Amino acid sequence: MSCVASVSPHEAIASQPSAPAGPRVIVAGATGFTGALAAHLLWRHPDFELVAVTGRSEQGRRLQDVYPRYRVPLVIEALELERLQGIDAAVVAYPHAAAAPTVAALRELGARVVDLSADFRLGSQSEYEKWYGEHPRPELLEDAVYGLTELHRERIAGAGIVANPGCYPTASLLALAPLARAGLIADVVIDAKQGISGAGRVFDETTHLSMAGENIVPYKVAAHRHTPEIEEQLRALDPAHPELKVQFQAHLVSLDQGEMASCYVTTTRPVAAEELRAMYADAYADEPFVELVERPPGVLEVRETNFCRVFAAADEHTGKVIAFGAIDNLWKGTSSQAVQNLNLMFGLPETRGLL
Amino acid sequence: MSCVASVSPHEAIASQPSAPAGPRVIVAGATGFTGALAAHLLWRHPDFELVAVTGRSEQGRRLQDVYPRYRVPLVIEALELERLQGIDAAVVAYPHAAAAPTVAALRELGARVVDLSADFRLGSQSEYEKWYGEHPRPELLEDAVYGLTELHRERIAGAGIVANPGCYPTASLLALAPLARAGLIADVVIDAKQGISGAGRVFDETTHLSMAGENIVPYKVAAHRHTPEIEEQLRALDPAHPELKVQFQAHLVSLDQGEMASCYVTTTRPVAAEELRAMYADAYADEPFVELVERPPGVLEVRETNFCRVFAAADEHTGKVIAFGAIDNLWKGTSSQAVQNLNLMFGLPETRGLL
Amino acid sequence: MSCVASVSPHEAIASQPSAPAGPRVIVAGATGFTGALAAHLLWRHPDFELVAVTGRSEQGRRLQDVYPRYRVPLVIEALELERLQGIDAAVVAYPHAAAAPTVAALRELGARVVDLSADFRLGSQSEYEKWYGEHPRPELLEDAVYGLTELHRERIAGAGIVANPGCYPTASLLALAPLARAGLIADVVIDAKQGISGAGRVFDETTHLSMAGENIVPYKVAAHRHTPEIEEQLRALDPAHPELKVQFQAHLVSLDQGEMASCYVTTTRPVAAEELRAMYADAYADEPFVELVERPPGVLEVRETNFCRVFAAADEHTGKVIAFGAIDNLWKGTSSQAVQNLNLMFGLPETRGLL
Amino acid sequence: MSCVASVSPHEAIASQPSAPAGPRVIVAGATGFTGALAAHLLWRHPDFELVAVTGRSEQGRRLQDVYPRYRVPLVIEALELERLQGIDAAVVAYPHAAAAPTVAALRELGARVVDLSADFRLGSQSEYEKWYGEHPRPELLEDAVYGLTELHRERIAGAGIVANPGCYPTASLLALAPLARAGLIADVVIDAKQGISGAGRVFDETTHLSMAGENIVPYKVAAHRHTPEIEEQLRALDPAHPELKVQFQAHLVSLDQGEMASCYVTTTRPVAAEELRAMYADAYADEPFVELVERPPGVLEVRETNFCRVFAAADEHTGKVIAFGAIDNLWKGTSSQAVQNLNLMFGLPETRGLL
Repeated sequence: MSCVASVSPHEAIASQPSAPAGPRVIVAGATGFTGALAAHLLWRHPDFELVAVTGRSEQGRRLQDVYPRYRVPLVIEALELERLQGIDAAVVAYPHAAAAPTVAALRELGARVVDLSADFRLGSQSEYEKWYGEHPRPELLEDAVYGLTELHRERIAGAGIVANPGCYPTASLLALAPLARAGLIADVVIDAKQGISGAGRVFDETTHLSMAGENIVPYKVAAHRHTPEIEEQLRALDPAHPELKVQFQAHLVSLDQGEMASCYVTTTRPVAAEELRAMYADAYADEPFVELVERPPGVLEVRETNFCRVFAAADEHTGKVIAFGAIDNLWKGTSSQAVQNLNLMFGLPETRGLL
Repeated sequence: MSCVASVSPHEAIASQPSAPAGPRVIVAGATGFTGALAAHLLWRHPDFELVAVTGRSEQGRRLQDVYPRYRVPLVIEALELERLQGIDAAVVAYPHAAAAPTVAALRELGARVVDLSADFRLGSQSEYEKWYGEHPRPELLEDAVYGLTELHRERIAGAGIVANPGCYPTASLLALAPLARAGLIADVVIDAKQGISGAGRVFDETTHLSMAGENIVPYKVAAHRHTPEIEEQLRALDPAHPELKVQFQAHLVSLDQGEMASCYVTTTRPVAAEELRAMYADAYADEPFVELVERPPGVLEVRETNFCRVFAAADEHTGKVIAFGAIDNLWKGTSSQAVQNLNLMFGLPETRGLL
Repeated sequence: MSCVASVSPHEAIASQPSAPAGPRVIVAGATGFTGALAAHLLWRHPDFELVAVTGRSEQGRRLQDVYPRYRVPLVIEALELERLQGIDAAVVAYPHAAAAPTVAALRELGARVVDLSADFRLGSQSEYEKWYGEHPRPELLEDAVYGLTELHRERIAGAGIVANPGCYPTASLLALAPLARAGLIADVVIDAKQGISGAGRVFDETTHLSMAGENIVPYKVAAHRHTPEIEEQLRALDPAHPELKVQFQAHLVSLDQGEMASCYVTTTRPVAAEELRAMYADAYADEPFVELVERPPGVLEVRETNFCRVFAAADEHTGKVIAFGAIDNLWKGTSSQAVQNLNLMFGLPETRGLL
Repeated sequence: MSCVASVSPHEAIASQPSAPAGPRVIVAGATGFTGALAAHLLWRHPDFELVAVTGRSEQGRRLQDVYPRYRVPLVIEALELERLQGIDAAVVAYPHAAAAPTVAALRELGARVVDLSADFRLGSQSEYEKWYGEHPRPELLEDAVYGLTELHRERIAGAGIVANPGCYPTASLLALAPLARAGLIADVVIDAKQGISGAGRVFDETTHLSMAGENIVPYKVAAHRHTPEIEEQLRALDPAHPELKVQFQAHLVSLDQGEMASCYVTTTRPVAAEELRAMYADAYADEPFVELVERPPGVLEVRETNFCRVFAAADEHTGKVIAFGAIDNLWKGTSSQAVQNLNLMFGLPETRGLL
């Protein structure tokens, strides 16, 4: 075989259009799905300057060679803190427990951090340790803000560490927040479905197209780590129900990107359709990335966007309220929400680089 | 363009291997997905003789030309009762309300009928009329048996009309029956997911690959007609809870055939894991088509089979029981269950033609 | 069912970010896949002002309600020329033969037109009529420029009518142009594969997920209308071979958007790998949207982009040259190339709104 | 989490229906896709007795636990020849070069072998070594028969070793054989497309749904090992053209099982449509597993069957003949063809266990 040499078609775009003088940011852990997408979004962002992408694997390769869909010509390098003097921000896309020490080190450099792991999502150390084992940096917990933008916008703007939510909590909480705030949730079942990208850059029977394609598979039955994260946030919205428990169940389905949280709420009192309608309209009227819709949304409608589509209805037969949250698990579920948070943290319009 | 003429490669198999002297059966409404599959299964069945396939559309074409996957060389014809003297059985695959008059006519011919529509699934005429409008043949209701084989095996064997269950009730009821029988269901949410074949041979935005592929879409929110069917059967299993209500929600997901019913049960009393285990083992030990599994099943494991895989677990965090039923919506959910019932009705081994 | 009313989440973005004072453009025929995407791209374009979307169906609905993926809040209206005074440009997404009269009328209004149909692609009226029947406006043929940007950039910039290429010719010609220019093509077979979106907003067995999913189907065997378009362009690049014929074959495969043209060239003389490499590098060194790659590209790498990835290799065993062109059939294959051309026609940077 | 214990639902079917007294067969290498499917087909075969499945990995697990789609309860064990005394046949599903020594050892035990590897497909040792390296057992080459059933039926019936064809050669040769026999092939391009199952139980970027889904990717450009296998067979059919060369190119596309070989033939003389039609009809009139069709076939039509659908047409524009062969790569392309061959080798009807 004889191959045509690669000329560099990227050179034209490799230097970002107008060399922004904006905040200098890195992505640590850019070889996974979410880190790579964060790098893609920041590379094309008009106001951030992506100065480095790091990874433990694939060092020396350009990110765009590992992820041909993302045209980021930066070379993946080891994370060497001494070379990162002067950075303003970092997105950390490490596994749970591995993230916290790096977040701490980056904080010491003066960088503001959006952490994609679970390490700083729970306010309660004991709850964290119940699900994940010993916390590596508990002293930083109180400085972290939970990064569901729509719930904690103001605190995120000033935070040193933003704990980016899990994708399941993002879709679930946006679907449920108006009900929780109104004290209406007596009991809730969340049945979530997600595309295979949710499994990440993992190569096994979970992700092989011949096994994952044309399939629907529940996983982590009765044991999902996202449960405490959702419960903690719901309880914060509804302090009158500190014992609220969530039945959460995840499924992998036969598609790439997309996530639907279907929420079934037993209410504390009957809720009329009109009240429900007004409640959601009030909650989301000014949200740039929450789209209230009039019929059940499909995840394809939000694919590769930072939007969450929300739909809620009252079931007259059972009296329950059903609420759906549809997102792209990699975008609003993770990486584009990280950018949304970075925009806030650096005083940029929240939608910048995301429409 | 010049095409090579079709020689008839099917002639070798067009005459069924050993010209069974068994019951003579027709499929009425063989142009839809479920009727066509029933015809396919009966054509290759060693003991039934498929003598006609009828349809309102596609008349004059061979079924295998309309459905190239199914090698049934019979020509689709109009349903003319006078030509059907001497048939022993029929599968009727008509829409709701259209089915009942044809079922009645076929009964008068002396044929035993498996009806795939909802017309005879509900014992209660008033419940039927609440969801479907006036019942066309209420006088036949009491002669019909609900055709979930595993629940009504003996009565099916002697029935004149078997009302084949909906696919959602099939998966849901097999997942829930042991709990209902034990009087354990206080409240239940069923979140069901199904491939696009569940929408049938319908050509619109619901089924176009560019809209249905890579998508997850809830539909018929708070209004699904399968609800009364499931409730009626659960209440029959658990007469002590005649007010039991089911919260049922369906979703279409990006695959062809496959269905998962995820059931979340608030129990009437705490249920220990060991008790749960024994309860399901007892219920299904002798069932040839229910496979109790040790980990959450995927729908791909039952694709193009008559098997239902069931998995149940107790959630220590919430106290709820979660039960899953995985089937192929076109097979065990509809057409192969019809054959399972026909086997019973004609004294054949229940598994004949289905393994 | 009780639905939550739709508040208008789009109002924030419905007025384009900075109300461009740029050219005023319409999309005629915005209800099909390609027209809708053109509208989406122009709506978010920083320099064009999309002032109307028209369609024969769906009038009165907002485009974003028909295509939930595209957040274009304009209402679909009938095409009424009198209301379109003062527009600068139009994209016409009509079927073949229906397009030409509308293109003519829009030209009379003074608008410059990018026509997505085949009506003005062929320079030769007789060739057109051989494949499509009588030409509705042959007098306009000589004013039209074939809109494969990379081949006719200068003439496109000044054209009144740009005949946007078919998607198959786009991928094929970009893969083959360097060879044709060098007079190297003695014989060529083009085997093209395309996702189901290529069939358009057509609802039948071709597009139903249960039939189109998990499938590969050749179509229009030995009779594809794109053949003359490809031949005419190749012959123009290689005037020494006016008799060059193309064997073109299309296939629909189980995905949404994406297209691969695999081209097998019997060369007029042996071509060494090094020469091939230099030839392609020279041809595409300065092209912003052609990416020469070092290994065979996948269509997923160009999905939802205006890029075409090209790879060429010499086969030592047969002496043939194999060249691949990978595009998104709806983007570079149609609608984003239309925007690329509009950029040129109005003196904007070619990449504006497309990166 | 508390799981319900697995009762053994398989016990009912674990003992094969009627304990056949037929030939005793093993599958060596049953953990790969093709070996597992061969085991599945032989387990349910009415006349073979599957007595063991072996594998280097997954030992101690039941095959049905590794492949939940295949209900084969046998435990995967190491291949220990001493325990295999008395077996009549074996299917060997090993990688190239690893297969030959095991085939030799099984032959010494007296078993007749269907080998799924390439080790015995080429009559010419030198051709083998050009593509695969040194041949491990060249002395056995002359005792092996190429196992494309339709071409070598009689020799297969008596063979000790049947070299099961590659899936690409199977589809290609069935599409081309009538033309080759008539001496009509002057030049041929084969563009083949295959589902991801063709990559096997390999876990990497080639098979991850997020990379392989919604994709079309050419691979092994200008270097495919199936080329010599196809050339050798075509030359044998057409001894007058010993220099015939094949341009073969493979692509992976976004589906699980299915394969299309699209063949573009420059003929040695003009071929009229009528002649072509008669030629193919003659060739395949009596073939139970080749279906000549009147319009281009889709691979879904042959999914999970042993059928090959063939369609041929003459292109008046170019004079070329286009022929398509559609198969399921795992079935007729590999494992069900192995069973077809075993049927022949043991005097059973060729279609036994395959309809």
